[in-house]
Amino acid sequence: MTRKAAIIGGGVIGGGWAARFLLNGWDVGVFDPDPEAERKIAAVLGNARLALPALSDVPMPPEGKLTFHGTIGEAVEGAEYVQESVSERIELKKKIYAQLQQANPDVLIGSSTSGFKASDLQEGSAAPHNIIVAHPFNPVYLLPLSEVSGSPANSAETVEKTVQIMKDIGMFPLVIRKEIDAFIGNRFLEAVWREALWMLVDGVATTEEIDEAIRMGFGLRWGQMGLFETYRIAGGEAGMRHFMAQFGPALKWPWTKLMDVPEFNEDLVDLVASQSDAQSGMYGIRELERIRDQNLVGFLRSLKERNWGAGKVLREHDARRAAAFEVEPSGAPLVLAQMQVLPGWIDYNGHMTESRYLFAASETCDAFLRLIGAGMEYVAAGHSYYTAETHILHLGEAKLGDRLTGTLQVLASDEKRLHTFVRILKDGVPVATVEQMCLHVDMKAGKACAAAPEVLAKLGPIAVAHAALPKPEAAGRFTGQRRA
Amino acid sequence: MTRKAAIIGGGVIGGGWAARFLLNGWDVGVFDPDPEAERKIAAVLGNARLALPALSDVPMPPEGKLTFHGTIGEAVEGAEYVQESVSERIELKKKIYAQLQQANPDVLIGSSTSGFKASDLQEGSAAPHNIIVAHPFNPVYLLPLSEVSGSPANSAETVEKTVQIMKDIGMFPLVIRKEIDAFIGNRFLEAVWREALWMLVDGVATTEEIDEAIRMGFGLRWGQMGLFETYRIAGGEAGMRHFMAQFGPALKWPWTKLMDVPEFNEDLVDLVASQSDAQSGMYGIRELERIRDQNLVGFLRSLKERNWGAGKVLREHDARRAAAFEVEPSGAPLVLAQMQVLPGWIDYNGHMTESRYLFAASETCDAFLRLIGAGMEYVAAGHSYYTAETHILHLGEAKLGDRLTGTLQVLASDEKRLHTFVRILKDGVPVATVEQMCLHVDMKAGKACAAAPEVLAKLGPIAVAHAALPKPEAAGRFTGQRRA
Repeated sequence: MTRKAAIIGGGVIGGGWAARFLLNGWDVGVFDPDPEAERKIAAVLGNARLALPALSDVPMPPEGKLTFHGTIGEAVEGAEYVQESVSERIELKKKIYAQLQQANPDVLIGSSTSGFKASDLQEGSAAPHNIIVAHPFNPVYLLPLSEVSGSPANSAETVEKTVQIMKDIGMFPLVIRKEIDAFIGNRFLEAVWREALWMLVDGVATTEEIDEAIRMGFGLRWGQMGLFETYRIAGGEAGMRHFMAQFGPALKWPWTKLMDVPEFNEDLVDLVASQSDAQSGMYGIRELERIRDQNLVGFLRSLKERNWGAGKVLREHDARRAAAFEVEPSGAPLVLAQMQVLPGWIDYNGHMTESRYLFAASETCDAFLRLIGAGMEYVAAGHSYYTAETHILHLGEAKLGDRLTGTLQVLASDEKRLHTFVRILKDGVPVATVEQMCLHVDMKAGKACAAAPEVLAKLGPIAVAHAALPKPEAAGRFTGQRRA
Repeated sequence: MTRKAAIIGGGVIGGGWAARFLLNGWDVGVFDPDPEAERKIAAVLGNARLALPALSDVPMPPEGKLTFHGTIGEAVEGAEYVQESVSERIELKKKIYAQLQQANPDVLIGSSTSGFKASDLQEGSAAPHNIIVAHPFNPVYLLPLSEVSGSPANSAETVEKTVQIMKDIGMFPLVIRKEIDAFIGNRFLEAVWREALWMLVDGVATTEEIDEAIRMGFGLRWGQMGLFETYRIAGGEAGMRHFMAQFGPALKWPWTKLMDVPEFNEDLVDLVASQSDAQSGMYGIRELERIRDQNLVGFLRSLKERNWGAGKVLREHDARRAAAFEVEPSGAPLVLAQMQVLPGWIDYNGHMTESRYLFAASETCDAFLRLIGAGMEYVAAGHSYYTAETHILHLGEAKLGDRLTGTLQVLASDEKRLHTFVRILKDGVPVATVEQMCLHVDMKAGKACAAAPEVLAKLGPIAVAHAALPKPEAAGRFTGQRRA
C-alpha cells in the first residue's frame, strides 16, 4: 500500500518535503491556510521534478498523490508521518501538534524547526514521545541532511522509526546525541552569518565579494569533506595534532575579537538587500533556484560517481530501491534513461551540440549494460563492450531544458557482438537515432572474446523479445543515403 | 620567454603554488631549507598533475622547469614574482623579504599569510610597495581563490599586476577593499572552527558528525553560490528583506551565546586528534588528498559545464590560452585541429569516451566552417550548417594525454549540402573516422537553403581540389558492414 505523509506548512521547506515524499512514491496530504500554498508547492514540485530524478540511476517510483486539505485532521488522516514546517512560533507549533494527535493519536511528528529543542516542542503534549525534530536544509528535495534530534521522552524506537523514514526518502539522518538549540548545521550558519554581517557593516566586503570568497575557496571543499577531514589533510604528513598546534593558537589572535553581534536594524537590512540586488537581481528567484539545483545535481552526481559523501547516500538509496524496479525484459524497446539538456550541452546555434546526442545514447547504452550485468564492476574485472561503429541520424532538435528519454532495441547479438539501436526521444518523438555495433573484449588481452555466461543469460531473453520488433528504418543506412 | 616565479617555503601551500605555476608553463625556483622540501613538493606536484589538467579543455602548455636552490638570492634570480609561504612568524617573513629585495630589487612579492596585513609585512622594508598579500586556499592547484590584499603603500599598478599574474595561472583574485586581519575566508573558517570546538568539548557531536552535518547540507550549497545568494533564494518570492526579517532576530537568540573561546589545551588536542583518527584514519594522507582532488575536479567540471562560479573562471582561463593552440589550415585533406586527450575525456575503461571522438570531429568541422566563412558570425546572422547524419568508425584507442590531429576531406558539396570525411589521427594513424552529411539551413525559417555566395566561393575550390583525392574506404559504410 502507498505510504502517506502529512505536510503542515507549505512554504519553501514544507514544499521541499512534499516534493521529496511525492517523488519517492509517498502520498502527501498538505495543510496550509495560505491561499497561495497550492501554487507555491506546485512551483517547488516543478523544480524538484527537474532535479531529483537526475540523481537516480534506477527508475523513479510512480509519483505519489498530492492532496490539499482544509483542516489538519483531514490532512493527517491515514498518514504514518507528519512533517511540520510552520513558522518559528512555539505556541503555534504546540497547537498544531495537539490537533494532529487528536485526529491521529499515534502519528509520528517531525518538526522542521531551525532552533527549538524536541523537549521544548513536546511540552504539554498528550503524546510527547511521538514528537521529534527532523531538521532539513533547503532545497529539501536535493540536500540529504536531516538532523534528527529527540529528547529523553523519545524512545529509541521513535528515533529509529524517524531515521528509517528519512532513509526511505533518500535522506541522510544525522542523529544528534545531545539536545542543543539550533542543532549542528545552524550553529555554523549563525556563526558565519554573524561574521558576514560584520564585514558588510565594517565595509570590508560586499555580499558578492563574500559569496566569491566562499564559493571560490573553502565552499568547494566543504561539499565533500567537511571541516575536520579537510584540516586533517592540511596537517599533512604530520597529521591532525600538527594542524591543531599550528592553527589552535589563532583562536587567541586578534581576529577572534569579532564575536559580538552587530545591531540588527533597518540600515543593516537595507545594506544587505541592496547589495544582494546588485549581485543577483538579474536573475529571478525561480531562475536562481534552477541554477542552484542544476549545480547541486552536478556536485551530487560527481560524488555519486566516486561513491563519496552525499554520493554514497544516493547510491545506497538507489540500491534500496533497485529491487523494486528490476526491469522485466519486454517486447517494447527498453526505456533506460531520462535526461535533461543542460547548459553545457548547447552549441553556438543554441541547440544541443551534436556530440551530446551520442553522449545521450552512451548513457542509454550504459544503463543497458548495467541491466545485463556488464556495468562498472564487470569492467573493473577486465571485460567490456567496446563500440566499433556508430551511425547517427538527426531527426529533430533538442534545446536547453528539454527532457530526453533514451530507449534501446537490440537488433542482433551473439556471444561477442551486440548490435543496438537507440532512440533519443523528446515528447515521445525521436530527435536522433543511434545505431551501434559493439564488440565484447578482454581488455587486458585487447581482443574480442565471448561475454560471461551470466551476461549472455540476461542479454538472451531481451534479444529474443526484441527480435519480434520491426526493424527500424534507419538501421543499416549509410551516410547520405536518400531518405525513404 | 618563459616566465619565472620564486617559491619561498615548500610546504603544502608553497608546493601547491609551485605546481600551479609549473603546470601553467612558468619556471619555478624554490628555496626551502627543509631537507625534505624536494620530496614534499614532488608529492604535491604529482597530485596536481593528476588533477589540474582535468579541468582544461585546451592543451596544457609545456610544463615549466622546477629548480631547487640553496639561497634565496639564487631562487629569485630572473623571477618576476615571488610567492612566500613560510610559517606565520612576522620577523622571519620580513627577513626573507629583505633578502629577496636585495637580490632582485624590483621583484613583486606575494605572501600566503593567513592573517597578517600587508602593512604589517611591509614594515621596515626598503620597497614596501612591492609586498602584497596573495592568500590562497588548499589545494592551491585546484581552488581558484586568491585573496589579494594591499596596503596604502601599494600602488594601483602593483595590485593590478598581482591580479594579472593570478589570472595568468588560472586563479580568481579577489581584491580586498579594506585591510583586515585574516581577510575574508579565514574569518569564516575561524568562526566555524570555534563553534566546532565547542561542540566537541560539550560532547554535542564528534568530528565525523560535524563533517557530515556540513557536507550533507550547506557545504554543498556553498561551493556554487556562497552565503547571500543562497539566502536570497531562501527568502523566496518575498526576497532578501523577507529573509532578513525571518533570520535576523535569531542573532539575539540563545545560540549566539556561544561566542566565547574554548580553552586550547592538550585535552582538546587529544579529543580532536583521536576522533579524527576514528573518522579518517583508514585513509593515508596522500589517499585523502587524491579523493579530495577527484571530488573537487568533479565539482569544478560540473560548474564549468554550466559556466557558473568557479567554472566560469576555468572557461575564461581556457579562452585566454586557446589562441596559442590555433592551427593554420593546410594540405589536402586539410589539417584543421590539434587536440589533446584530457582527463575529462576519459571513460571508466580508461579510454577516450566515445562521444569525445565525435566531439573531436566537431571541433575539426567547426574549424573548416570558420575557414570557409561560415563560423560564429555567420551563424549569428541566421544561417548555419546542421548535421543531418553521421557515421563513425572506431579504428584505435586514444588514451589520456594523447595528442590528436583532425583532418577534413570534402567528399561532395553543392549549394545546400556538404558531405565531409574527418579523420582523427594519433601519430598520423586514424583512431576514428567520421563521415557527415550537413545541410545548410536558414535557422529562422527552419529550412534548408543555399549557402551565401561568398561561402560557396571559398568552399568550391577546396571541393574541386579534394575531388582528386581517393574516396576513403569507410565512406558510404553502414553500421555492421563487414570490413574489407
